[in-house]
Amino acid sequence: MTQTPRSIKILDTTLRDGEQTPGVSLTLDDKIEIAQQLNNLGVDVIEAGFPSSSEGERKVVKEIKQLGLNSQICALSRCTKKDIDAALDCNVDLIHIFIPSSPIQMKYAVNMTPQQVLSSTVESIQYIKDHGAKCEFSPMDATRTETPFLHQICQAAQDAGMDSLNIPDTVGCMIPKTTFELFKNLKTIIKVPISVHCHDDFGLAVANSLAAVEAGADQVHVAVNGLGERAGNAALEEVITTLHVVYGYKTNINTRLLYSTSRLVSSLSGVSVQVNKAIVGENAFAHESGIHTRGVTEQPLTFEPISPEIVGRTRKLVAGKLAGTRGIQAELNEIGIHPNNTQLTEIVQRVKELGDKGKSVTDADLISLTSAVMGQVIGDEKIVDLCDLAVVTGIKVLPTASVRLTLDGKEYVAAETGVGPVDAVLKAIQKLTGNLEKIKLSEYRLEAITGGSNAVAEVVVKVEDEKGNIVSARATREDIVMASVEAMINGINKCLLKNRRSNNNNSSQGKKQ
Amino acid sequence: MTQTPRSIKILDTTLRDGEQTPGVSLTLDDKIEIAQQLNNLGVDVIEAGFPSSSEGERKVVKEIKQLGLNSQICALSRCTKKDIDAALDCNVDLIHIFIPSSPIQMKYAVNMTPQQVLSSTVESIQYIKDHGAKCEFSPMDATRTETPFLHQICQAAQDAGMDSLNIPDTVGCMIPKTTFELFKNLKTIIKVPISVHCHDDFGLAVANSLAAVEAGADQVHVAVNGLGERAGNAALEEVITTLHVVYGYKTNINTRLLYSTSRLVSSLSGVSVQVNKAIVGENAFAHESGIHTRGVTEQPLTFEPISPEIVGRTRKLVAGKLAGTRGIQAELNEIGIHPNNTQLTEIVQRVKELGDKGKSVTDADLISLTSAVMGQVIGDEKIVDLCDLAVVTGIKVLPTASVRLTLDGKEYVAAETGVGPVDAVLKAIQKLTGNLEKIKLSEYRLEAITGGSNAVAEVVVKVEDEKGNIVSARATREDIVMASVEAMINGINKCLLKNRRSNNNNSSQGKKQ
Repeated sequence: MTQTPRSIKILDTTLRDGEQTPGVSLTLDDKIEIAQQLNNLGVDVIEAGFPSSSEGERKVVKEIKQLGLNSQICALSRCTKKDIDAALDCNVDLIHIFIPSSPIQMKYAVNMTPQQVLSSTVESIQYIKDHGAKCEFSPMDATRTETPFLHQICQAAQDAGMDSLNIPDTVGCMIPKTTFELFKNLKTIIKVPISVHCHDDFGLAVANSLAAVEAGADQVHVAVNGLGERAGNAALEEVITTLHVVYGYKTNINTRLLYSTSRLVSSLSGVSVQVNKAIVGENAFAHESGIHTRGVTEQPLTFEPISPEIVGRTRKLVAGKLAGTRGIQAELNEIGIHPNNTQLTEIVQRVKELGDKGKSVTDADLISLTSAVMGQVIGDEKIVDLCDLAVVTGIKVLPTASVRLTLDGKEYVAAETGVGPVDAVLKAIQKLTGNLEKIKLSEYRLEAITGGSNAVAEVVVKVEDEKGNIVSARATREDIVMASVEAMINGINKCLLKNRRSNNNNSSQGKKQ
Repeated sequence: MTQTPRSIKILDTTLRDGEQTPGVSLTLDDKIEIAQQLNNLGVDVIEAGFPSSSEGERKVVKEIKQLGLNSQICALSRCTKKDIDAALDCNVDLIHIFIPSSPIQMKYAVNMTPQQVLSSTVESIQYIKDHGAKCEFSPMDATRTETPFLHQICQAAQDAGMDSLNIPDTVGCMIPKTTFELFKNLKTIIKVPISVHCHDDFGLAVANSLAAVEAGADQVHVAVNGLGERAGNAALEEVITTLHVVYGYKTNINTRLLYSTSRLVSSLSGVSVQVNKAIVGENAFAHESGIHTRGVTEQPLTFEPISPEIVGRTRKLVAGKLAGTRGIQAELNEIGIHPNNTQLTEIVQRVKELGDKGKSVTDADLISLTSAVMGQVIGDEKIVDLCDLAVVTGIKVLPTASVRLTLDGKEYVAAETGVGPVDAVLKAIQKLTGNLEKIKLSEYRLEAITGGSNAVAEVVVKVEDEKGNIVSARATREDIVMASVEAMINGINKCLLKNRRSNNNNSSQGKKQ
């Protein structure tokens, strides 16, 4: 008989603490879309908002509750009748009340005595229970609360009938060892389920959440992409993946939806994920250095802790100065180019030289140096070539672009307007390639630019053909508009090249096309 | 007699593992600038590169060594004579050699037997010691290596004369508990200093590094902003701050340079830091929600684990739908606007309404609704106003912009070219405001855009007056060029408004200017 793995509940607070991320504001529609995705993902509880904070917020929580999702819906509330009434009015499954319990917060955040905090806690829980709702109680700043008072308030809340307790590390000052001890001690006096809610001020939110689970915590509060106040909350995707893969525990989460959930929240919140973010960052399953790419192409787990598919992703090999032969070969094979060994060595050498100059090696660079080495002017295979381009924008000027391009040597002209110059020019190009070759832009990404207004912009596009094949391409330029155009043209050429080579693979080898 | 705090050494690998971040390529000059900054920061060892990987890389390591910094300079090397010779040739203080020791990596990364790995280790260490250099030895993928073999290879390396041992968690699969045990066991057989080198695949690199330190590790390998292969290495800023603040340990790092170091590396590597990144993210010391901003304005530590000054930063209060009265009041006071209590309540209400519509509340929004509420058309205080603007770019078109603006009601016209349309238009504006009011752009930041080419762009600028006062302003628009222009004009107005109000504060109160 095999043992059933331990099961951990997940409360997601992307819509509440996550929305407290400075600068983030989500509309009603955004929040409904995220709630539906969290429901599909399988989170047990969705903390949908803080109804008393504004009329709009109350409406959001009500509407999310009315969706009839499988996930339970929770609302945040202070320990006041007004706040609790607002939450009750939304008919939520769970009301999450909080009150400061640390000396500094009792004094400066609410100006209450410990006795007042205690009575307020007990009265609020009783009020909620009298109205037939469930209650999760948070002593705010629990981790800077004196232990005797923390135990006293948790005990009082339990006696008053709380359904679950949450321990927030409000300013993120814990380490895994102290978190473990705190939860171990609480488990001796608290009989209802305990949640852990960590903040990432020292980069330890995930580790602290896991330490609490090790000590017996039953539920983890998380937010997608680690959104939340200041440095944010424990990242949903990191907590879940570690619980499943490293601990072998069970949650109700479908891990294959982790990446798409991250992308959705990133796009609606406008908060982008850094490339080196665990699990969901662009580079989390990308490999550049030679030894790494060699190992990965032979046996992926050589340099990966898990298969990217588990979290809904795919592997990426990147050419660069440290890239090895295998990585570059794999990248060229992917687009149907098969250099022999001598050629490959020379290509790798040139990639390294380019890297030494501080240049990031783009797809276009790789193709252009490969064509030089292979003596085939693969550049001639540039099926689409841009001849002329003009873009204007301004005040009382409709952003407008005109392009003249050749496709298989024949000239085409188009003009379009757009919401801005980039939109106008990409629409003009697509007007032609969309008609002629059924290729369209499926994703546009401009990396953040920091520095001066003349800093280099990096654009990554994904283009899609009518069969749903997607290729990505990038370009870097100081001119944002031109970087966008170049990336788009690179993507279209790569897509066409791939299709034509795969249609015509054996016969075309070594022949100048 | 007070006890001396425990002291931990820091090896920074931003220039080596950090540069293996897919897509990152640093020039010789970039690397020298980063090395100098790391030296000023106070890191004990700078891992400067992997000399055998390319000619350029060897040159970099040589030149960094020749700078004569206080930090020791280290070079990476495989366990081969060719690699070690390349490192010796750079005359570095320390050669860091590595060889796979886990079954999967011995087989797939290098195709060697355990016996071959052992001999290669011993021979390489002896070769280095015979040449009078110091050696740190890494059994690569140590954390997936069978324990008896890990102990055997470390023992053999110690007997061969290694100066220090490094335990890399190459694929980031450890948790703090298992890391602690691994290091505790190793400390019983290894007498030379031990380093820990963690990867962040599950978001646990920092926690694992700290667990190793708890178990007795003497040195931590880190990278600025957590750069490195895949999800990267343990972030320097998080490890250091936690060691100093939470553990009370000592390092040689000047924590006040952590933020500027992060900014430098972000700008040179082109890898931006997400806003909710601990310590160095834009939001790490920003506060939006009402309860939080109230507490923070009364006593900062109410909602902050440390003073931002410790890591070279300042606090930021942000208006938003969850913003409270105190936060918004503080923000208005900062620019010299003092609403009475009734006005303030109304302003807060309008900010919340704007937030409910999913709008991020910009400085311009806040000023415009404040002027509406206060019955003073603060909009009239728009000292600079843009009347006309035209921008063109394209192929064989020099990006060019013309502007007509009013300053205190008088009209001025200018035209400029630039590397791109944004650069051209910001230069044209500065040509006028720089001459007339000595205000110039000190930083330009465009947040990453993901989605379609019509996604909303957010631009944040910092503008600086001749006295060195800096104000930041932002704007969001679908048109990148117009968002940049609006942010710039907002910033200039904010800067001028602030100066004029502070020159003329008491007399202007309540008077329409």
